[in-house]
Amino acid sequence: MRTFMDEDFLLSTPTARQLYHGTAEKLPIIDYHCHINPKEIARDQKFENISQIWLQGDHYKWRVMRAGGITEDKITGDAPDREKFRAFASVMPKLMGNPIYHWSHLELKRVFGIQEPLTLKNADEIYDHCSEVLKGYSARSLMRRFDVSVICTTDDPIDGLQYHEQIQSDPEMEIQVLPAFRPDQAVNIEKPGFAAYIKNLSKVTGRKLNTPEDVVAALQERMDYFEAHGCLCADHGLDYCMFEKPDKMAANRAFSMAMEGRCPDREWADAYKTFVTIACAKRYAQKNWVMQIHFGCLRNVNQIQFDRLGPDTGYDAVNSRSGVEHMAPLLNAFAENEGLPKMILYSLNPTDNTALATIMACFQGGGTAGKIQQGSAWWFNDHRYGMRNQLTELAANGVLGCFVGMLTDSRSFLSYTRHEYFRRVLCELVGEWVERGQYPEDPEALRKLIRDLSYQNTCDFFGFKNR
Amino acid sequence: MRTFMDEDFLLSTPTARQLYHGTAEKLPIIDYHCHINPKEIARDQKFENISQIWLQGDHYKWRVMRAGGITEDKITGDAPDREKFRAFASVMPKLMGNPIYHWSHLELKRVFGIQEPLTLKNADEIYDHCSEVLKGYSARSLMRRFDVSVICTTDDPIDGLQYHEQIQSDPEMEIQVLPAFRPDQAVNIEKPGFAAYIKNLSKVTGRKLNTPEDVVAALQERMDYFEAHGCLCADHGLDYCMFEKPDKMAANRAFSMAMEGRCPDREWADAYKTFVTIACAKRYAQKNWVMQIHFGCLRNVNQIQFDRLGPDTGYDAVNSRSGVEHMAPLLNAFAENEGLPKMILYSLNPTDNTALATIMACFQGGGTAGKIQQGSAWWFNDHRYGMRNQLTELAANGVLGCFVGMLTDSRSFLSYTRHEYFRRVLCELVGEWVERGQYPEDPEALRKLIRDLSYQNTCDFFGFKNR
Amino acid sequence: MRTFMDEDFLLSTPTARQLYHGTAEKLPIIDYHCHINPKEIARDQKFENISQIWLQGDHYKWRVMRAGGITEDKITGDAPDREKFRAFASVMPKLMGNPIYHWSHLELKRVFGIQEPLTLKNADEIYDHCSEVLKGYSARSLMRRFDVSVICTTDDPIDGLQYHEQIQSDPEMEIQVLPAFRPDQAVNIEKPGFAAYIKNLSKVTGRKLNTPEDVVAALQERMDYFEAHGCLCADHGLDYCMFEKPDKMAANRAFSMAMEGRCPDREWADAYKTFVTIACAKRYAQKNWVMQIHFGCLRNVNQIQFDRLGPDTGYDAVNSRSGVEHMAPLLNAFAENEGLPKMILYSLNPTDNTALATIMACFQGGGTAGKIQQGSAWWFNDHRYGMRNQLTELAANGVLGCFVGMLTDSRSFLSYTRHEYFRRVLCELVGEWVERGQYPEDPEALRKLIRDLSYQNTCDFFGFKNR
Repeated sequence: MRTFMDEDFLLSTPTARQLYHGTAEKLPIIDYHCHINPKEIARDQKFENISQIWLQGDHYKWRVMRAGGITEDKITGDAPDREKFRAFASVMPKLMGNPIYHWSHLELKRVFGIQEPLTLKNADEIYDHCSEVLKGYSARSLMRRFDVSVICTTDDPIDGLQYHEQIQSDPEMEIQVLPAFRPDQAVNIEKPGFAAYIKNLSKVTGRKLNTPEDVVAALQERMDYFEAHGCLCADHGLDYCMFEKPDKMAANRAFSMAMEGRCPDREWADAYKTFVTIACAKRYAQKNWVMQIHFGCLRNVNQIQFDRLGPDTGYDAVNSRSGVEHMAPLLNAFAENEGLPKMILYSLNPTDNTALATIMACFQGGGTAGKIQQGSAWWFNDHRYGMRNQLTELAANGVLGCFVGMLTDSRSFLSYTRHEYFRRVLCELVGEWVERGQYPEDPEALRKLIRDLSYQNTCDFFGFKNR
Repeated sequence: MRTFMDEDFLLSTPTARQLYHGTAEKLPIIDYHCHINPKEIARDQKFENISQIWLQGDHYKWRVMRAGGITEDKITGDAPDREKFRAFASVMPKLMGNPIYHWSHLELKRVFGIQEPLTLKNADEIYDHCSEVLKGYSARSLMRRFDVSVICTTDDPIDGLQYHEQIQSDPEMEIQVLPAFRPDQAVNIEKPGFAAYIKNLSKVTGRKLNTPEDVVAALQERMDYFEAHGCLCADHGLDYCMFEKPDKMAANRAFSMAMEGRCPDREWADAYKTFVTIACAKRYAQKNWVMQIHFGCLRNVNQIQFDRLGPDTGYDAVNSRSGVEHMAPLLNAFAENEGLPKMILYSLNPTDNTALATIMACFQGGGTAGKIQQGSAWWFNDHRYGMRNQLTELAANGVLGCFVGMLTDSRSFLSYTRHEYFRRVLCELVGEWVERGQYPEDPEALRKLIRDLSYQNTCDFFGFKNR
Repeated sequence: MRTFMDEDFLLSTPTARQLYHGTAEKLPIIDYHCHINPKEIARDQKFENISQIWLQGDHYKWRVMRAGGITEDKITGDAPDREKFRAFASVMPKLMGNPIYHWSHLELKRVFGIQEPLTLKNADEIYDHCSEVLKGYSARSLMRRFDVSVICTTDDPIDGLQYHEQIQSDPEMEIQVLPAFRPDQAVNIEKPGFAAYIKNLSKVTGRKLNTPEDVVAALQERMDYFEAHGCLCADHGLDYCMFEKPDKMAANRAFSMAMEGRCPDREWADAYKTFVTIACAKRYAQKNWVMQIHFGCLRNVNQIQFDRLGPDTGYDAVNSRSGVEHMAPLLNAFAENEGLPKMILYSLNPTDNTALATIMACFQGGGTAGKIQQGSAWWFNDHRYGMRNQLTELAANGVLGCFVGMLTDSRSFLSYTRHEYFRRVLCELVGEWVERGQYPEDPEALRKLIRDLSYQNTCDFFGFKNR
């Protein structure tokens, strides 16, 4: 019987413990994809209580609270922060096997020094304790607490990046906070706000945007602006991976319709999206940026709740029509257009793992190790089993040693424990292979591997400054 | 080396054994979804030999017998019962890793006291022994042997429920036997017998059924009738989960065509099915019934054998086009129509697990814990790995502590051992988490969890009388 | 801590070790599906160095080299053999968790006596050692080294089988080398070379081929020719499993278009393919041949590399639209046409496993044990996890005891270690079940089971001469 979440949590063999405590644990964190608001770093935001930093905006927790029978007033409603915390605490014991159970306790341990499991019984006491502890913390000091070295936020092409400027020019801020280019609103032509967005893009760039090619030119201008602010990567979020022949006529037609407020047919919309995406990829390749594609999400499926609460409130799901079969022709089009950048691909549908790993493998080459990456287990999959599956699949069909590893995808300054979680899962898996005689017990090679997958590969792949 | 299927079967840790023997083992069984014929309970059916209760009607066993090289005469044909039993016994040793191997031996142990593995060598002896033991048993005494507290059968809306009346008015019958409402024949408009069925429904209700709305009204009348007979749940079986805008025109057109014996286009048929299903859901919600949806089955794929033997004879398969992506708009339509009942969703395709778990989560809420449930591993998936996967996925993306647990889906009075099987798998999994320090070793909380997942949640969710 | 890949590699329990060393290890190898060039056996080919036998033509290794950052000149290019070997060695340590890591080391151990892990450091030494050892080996002596009893190559219907004749008439060659009939070029009407191929088939058979029925007649003639050369099986490779009503009109139209160099619509093409496939199946059934269907592959997805290197160079992937749902109507059409042969079905997409296992089960019967087989984990899936999953799924939904087991699908005389790998995975899984009390510890039954799955079932199923 092992103690609940002690220092050897998830590490069941001597080798796993050695790899984690000897190497992984000590490495700085690079969080190359997150949704932290840079304003909070620029202003070095403080937090009054744990509900504010823990429950506010965390739709992962909202989902399990709803499923656990909590009413909406204590989730997104007007109930006092303490009541919300008590409500969450009351659901906790039912969350066995859910990553939130582990992440939450890791956060309570690492930042607040709380060792006991959170339940309704100790909720008030813990709430008070955490509020007290939070007085000593701010956005930046939390990042330092976790030894964060670099983060990339997620930013709209229109964004002026003023907070990034502020952070980067602050002599007291040693952590790299870089923007990432996310042009979804200029790509996803079928979404309601498209025409309005294009008008904004036109205003910001001072360009007339009458064709898809104009949109591309405007985006390229903004890429230059982002580059001047240290940007090293882009991210494309797609409900499904699309591919249509990047036919200019069809793309034009779709664009005209959308600008008139009409919704283009899916085929035309896909032609537009394919056209713009290929053009972006080419420019990323020229800039030596990393291009991420996140796909396979059904968004806002509960209309009543969407009307009440808006997007990103816990009403998204896995798209079982993720379009993974289009990833092959899309990457091929990038390559044929002389614009296949370094890439990281993520499907929200875990049944895509093998197909995606084998498609990726068809576009490796050119002498760049791990040029095309399969992203770490994403969102609904970033639990212990999901991470283990992703690592196992990737290893079986690719080169594990080239993997760029973990990211949080989070809005919270407490979520860096997910890197700890990932590193434990990684060390456990590698440790298991070594202990079972499936990989040689070569301490130096193993240290290098764990270091590469926890830190170094990411640094090299993106081109971040080495610590 | 552990003894073959001893008392600690599937329980590899002290915690797992403590959870099972200390809690799970002692709880009554609620079998909220089965295909027991209520007539057999009303008449308290007896069985002459083990082939009659074991092989007759069990298409799970028929499939493996066919694959094992047994000719049809010894499966569904005229061979004597003893010969059929011998044939099955001869295949048994080849069934390692198949749940039938474990279920069969659990049944032989628990009811017949047989400890040795069944093979061709001891088949005759076991056949004779079982026939002798069966003299002391009947349908009801078998249910008592397994401490069954409640079962829900599966009944057509047209059914007069006379056997349920008989059972419920029998003062000597203390086990609750409730009907469940299964309106498939009124929904699945593309199936050959649809028009004839609607005529029967018309006759039973004395209503003219000229439109889909008339069908809904007739079904609602029958729901009231079922409710008066203690019904607390409904079940919809769909080859694939459909969703079309519930357009009355299209539904009407499909209905007219089908009543004329023509097969409507899939789009129109789906419009009809969506329309009726939404209307049913609304009424279930009003009645506070549980609505089950079973989907993802390819039925009767072997035409020659269908012509010979009819349906439910072992010729169904997993539908890899299960339509899971339509579950989101379907549930959304229920909600927008003010009619989202408590639900249990089952896909026959195990690759739908994650998508389904994440879709479900978008419709939780309103203060009901576990309002939308992912059903226990179903049919082709209800083996040890399937159950473990379902529990793991559910835990990772939902609230395991709210799960309503196991059902048999069976026609046999011996199948209650599947609850034992499930409880062992559950205790093993939870025990593993505790032993590895992934969940606190809190005996009281663990006892509650195991009790909830084995019995109490089901009782509360459906509203069965507590034992 | 276990020694790296020692004699008990992958065997963690006493039972597993007993099953492997006591039974599996000693059995001859039947490799019923491979891509060995019979010319190399006829001429008893020799190899100058390990790159020639290991890297030349092995696109598995090419893929990981590309992903590992090796430039193309050292993969398929003009770099010297020694440089290519060094390049591969440099990637090896990063391949943990990849089957190539294990296969490569098994090959180095079994044939070359090398015990240490291959790295860049010892690459030159190992290269020299292997070249030395290879002087003592030839194609045939390598086969003997692995105790190969039978192999089936993969041959085009047009092939004259001269090398097979040569081998079979060679009194010094005791290993059975049989052809297998692979009519893909006559079936896959949508591929560019179709018309040219049909003209060749016409020339070889001296028949006018004006209709699909003519093609079938020509193929049947060639089947007779193959049969006269000892052929016992056929193989159909399909990018996706298709099914269209085998409508003669549509098939004719597709054929006419294709012969004029036009690409028929997918629906018509599928009608042609379905028509020809059903006709082939019927004739296979009459000959009592085994019919294999391999489906679910996206081929040549990287156009630039295809133009440079041609097919089978490492640019194929899993097709997530594998068409598994068409397997049911296709097999049904075989049966209704009185032509359902013994079959082995393989999908490249591992998410098809359950669906396929349940579809297969609907076509078992007629007294042949294991008439329809789910093929061993194929290509991208033939790693330890893939094999274990396939065995587990098959066991859960079928009769494991009837399984025909492993094949290499390889071009290399060193790949027979994959049978060793499979047998270790099998013995580990069965051993685990026995040690945990899930299957009886009956040494005789277990020996039979392991023997059946490693050798005997294959022998009996295909009708090979027993050793």
